[in-house]
Amino acid sequence: MTTLHEPLTTSHEPLITMQNVPIALLGCGTVGSGVARLLTEDADYIAQRTGLNVKVRYVLAKQANPRAREALASAKWVDSLAPILADPDVQIVCELIGGDGFALTCAREILKSGRSLVTANKAMLAKHGKELFTLAHQAGGCIGFEASCAGGVPLFVSLRDGLVANRINAIYGILNGTANYILTEMSDQDKPYAQALAEAQAAGYAEADPSFDVQGIDAGHKIAIIAAIAFGADIDLDSVPIEGIAGLALDDILYARELGYTIKLIAAAQRVGEGIMLRVHPALVPRSNQLAHVKGPFNAISIFGHATGHVLLLGRGAGQSPTASAVVSDIVDIALGHAHRRFQTLRIWPGKTQAAQIVDTDQLFSRCYVRLTVVDRPGVMAQVTKIFGDCGISLSGLLQKEVAAGGTVPIVITTHLAREGDLRQAIEQIARLNVVKAPPVWFRVLEMPDEALDTSDTWHRKD
Amino acid sequence: MTTLHEPLTTSHEPLITMQNVPIALLGCGTVGSGVARLLTEDADYIAQRTGLNVKVRYVLAKQANPRAREALASAKWVDSLAPILADPDVQIVCELIGGDGFALTCAREILKSGRSLVTANKAMLAKHGKELFTLAHQAGGCIGFEASCAGGVPLFVSLRDGLVANRINAIYGILNGTANYILTEMSDQDKPYAQALAEAQAAGYAEADPSFDVQGIDAGHKIAIIAAIAFGADIDLDSVPIEGIAGLALDDILYARELGYTIKLIAAAQRVGEGIMLRVHPALVPRSNQLAHVKGPFNAISIFGHATGHVLLLGRGAGQSPTASAVVSDIVDIALGHAHRRFQTLRIWPGKTQAAQIVDTDQLFSRCYVRLTVVDRPGVMAQVTKIFGDCGISLSGLLQKEVAAGGTVPIVITTHLAREGDLRQAIEQIARLNVVKAPPVWFRVLEMPDEALDTSDTWHRKD
Repeated sequence: MTTLHEPLTTSHEPLITMQNVPIALLGCGTVGSGVARLLTEDADYIAQRTGLNVKVRYVLAKQANPRAREALASAKWVDSLAPILADPDVQIVCELIGGDGFALTCAREILKSGRSLVTANKAMLAKHGKELFTLAHQAGGCIGFEASCAGGVPLFVSLRDGLVANRINAIYGILNGTANYILTEMSDQDKPYAQALAEAQAAGYAEADPSFDVQGIDAGHKIAIIAAIAFGADIDLDSVPIEGIAGLALDDILYARELGYTIKLIAAAQRVGEGIMLRVHPALVPRSNQLAHVKGPFNAISIFGHATGHVLLLGRGAGQSPTASAVVSDIVDIALGHAHRRFQTLRIWPGKTQAAQIVDTDQLFSRCYVRLTVVDRPGVMAQVTKIFGDCGISLSGLLQKEVAAGGTVPIVITTHLAREGDLRQAIEQIARLNVVKAPPVWFRVLEMPDEALDTSDTWHRKD
Repeated sequence: MTTLHEPLTTSHEPLITMQNVPIALLGCGTVGSGVARLLTEDADYIAQRTGLNVKVRYVLAKQANPRAREALASAKWVDSLAPILADPDVQIVCELIGGDGFALTCAREILKSGRSLVTANKAMLAKHGKELFTLAHQAGGCIGFEASCAGGVPLFVSLRDGLVANRINAIYGILNGTANYILTEMSDQDKPYAQALAEAQAAGYAEADPSFDVQGIDAGHKIAIIAAIAFGADIDLDSVPIEGIAGLALDDILYARELGYTIKLIAAAQRVGEGIMLRVHPALVPRSNQLAHVKGPFNAISIFGHATGHVLLLGRGAGQSPTASAVVSDIVDIALGHAHRRFQTLRIWPGKTQAAQIVDTDQLFSRCYVRLTVVDRPGVMAQVTKIFGDCGISLSGLLQKEVAAGGTVPIVITTHLAREGDLRQAIEQIARLNVVKAPPVWFRVLEMPDEALDTSDTWHRKD
């Protein structure tokens, strides 16, 4: 038998006419260099798979990786958008600068000119998405943003194409690799938060100022973008409640493990009646849930479609080649002409979409984990449990470990489903007891929605 | 704030021109009824998302679900392909009959006429794919087959679009829901195989004759199709080595658990030099691997792309609505015109693709689990371990539990990486020892490939 051959040589006649696609790259940092690499080292492979010769014709970048400079030596290295906007052959521009300063200025110009924008810039989309999508709709271009959320994961292509027949009912995700890396180090190695963070920084998974990631802000941006696409809704970014993992106590990691859970930073979006619930917070994830087993810098998204039921997508959320892979998939999608019509039907942000009613989470029901630090003397447990009882909260699990008498003792409680407003009230009352010696720590326990697939006879039985 | 509104009312101007897409359904069984349901109950939603009015104009079916008959009352119920082939408006036909009798006859006629075929029929594709893809290429139509493998999982859309920039290096999957349901019942409930099978049959997850599923044949068909697409190779279905789970001993489930593994039926495809490894077999999956946590009727596929690294997709492998969802995603993809050009670049099956060199697995290296039943007397362990040593196989773990003296005792061994040919030889020699009282049972331990992502400075450092 002859061997597997990759890529095919020119002895095989091309089945279709090749199409030249000159593009512009704005920014040649980590992701830009990664895109340069894919488009040069793998040019033949991409051409063979897609029938497209994608070539970087312009680069607008302050600095660049030397290898990328070499690979793109035949491109025109420019210092403004002007030459790009003057070249009608270039209809696709990749914004890989980041932030919402110069990147936003460029994005506006590109879209106003009727061109299409491919971006990895989630902060810009989360804050300025409405404006940018409106510009695109008006001028006839489109925006590719697969690289903006969970780059290595085929998320938007799955939501919009694979799951096109589905109403999306809920999305639960681990969307920030920095936070997940830290939590994995804490859970798998029993490291305290500060040590796990320091190691994440040393390994390049966390920034010197990690707050954007560990406070859940990045995850909040991403779930807002994903929910807008998945629910076809206009999301007000500032209405997403966010709680991060900064300063998480190793004790909670250990207690959670003992109870059968792993703590993860969960970004959640779910239909609730006519509104949507949208939030980011640490949660105890049961070990029976795949999300509990997402390690290190990986991201994962659980999607609940009304026809598919549960679908999970997992992959690297960041990194040069995974993000560059997503950028290239968008370039191909736009160049093949697939994106334009689909973009027109995306009913988000341009003022034609209804604003989403974000549900008040106090009305939602959750299970909770609560850790109290109390004095070790008679009557304490009775006081604490009475408050839960008075607030209508039923207890599911309770752990109190023996400690040397006379000091403080931790009590760990898990509740059954209870109204979050009632939980909050109970915890506030407990915090005010004089026997409680530290602010209570509490986390939600993650409960995924029912898939609610109809397996009844109605559509199944034969004549 | 106004509420989330789904679907949008006609007070919102459509952004694009709607396109009518009349289709034909062949077969109105479980999947056909599911497609009928999605296309009627969710017609507005699909139209709004895609700009397409997909309507079933013809149904060719011997029998049907009454609800589906009602939903498709305005379609023409025909008893041959002729009226469909005579109607130039209908360019997309869904073959949801199954098998390779009448379904194959229809598929040939549809494709020869230049029309496009959407199918869920993996057996037909695995056996006749080459012929059918050739017909499609010659006549100008295409074939949508997302529903044929892991229906609820957006697998092919991810492989071909999301991961378009990637050379796929390996695929490891749990592709048969029947086998996985049985294994989950055994692992989670400590049930013997026969009981787990009976319960799977009672619950509708296994057929009266389950051999196609439990012997791994179905998974073999699927991995052959997936590998052909992912590697762009011509796969000879009969060259895929297949081992199933029929008669799996509960003891192995329990020992595997004790050693930190879960037994799964794994379908694997991986590049090895210029060839590919392709096979289906039960394997011990480490609990650190997400595949170990795939439960019940769910399927999951781990994909290793050269740029993305590891991507995992999980979802329902079967069931009315997940499969119907995949069928509709193909109808949309073809109707939007996305599929034709992509289909032309698919270099599989039509005789223009190199035949895959399937690697002889005896040359591959694996870790193994071996369970022996030996007499409980002096010298046995020495005999057994000497054979492993003589064959160059290093032992990783060994378990022998105390039993009442004088009978037989189980010995469980795990090996380090060893050449499979040497492992086979060692096990054959051990089997011939007169102290070994039952055929040795052995399984591979699943080792996933390195992602091999380049994080070196070369493409990362700045000027």
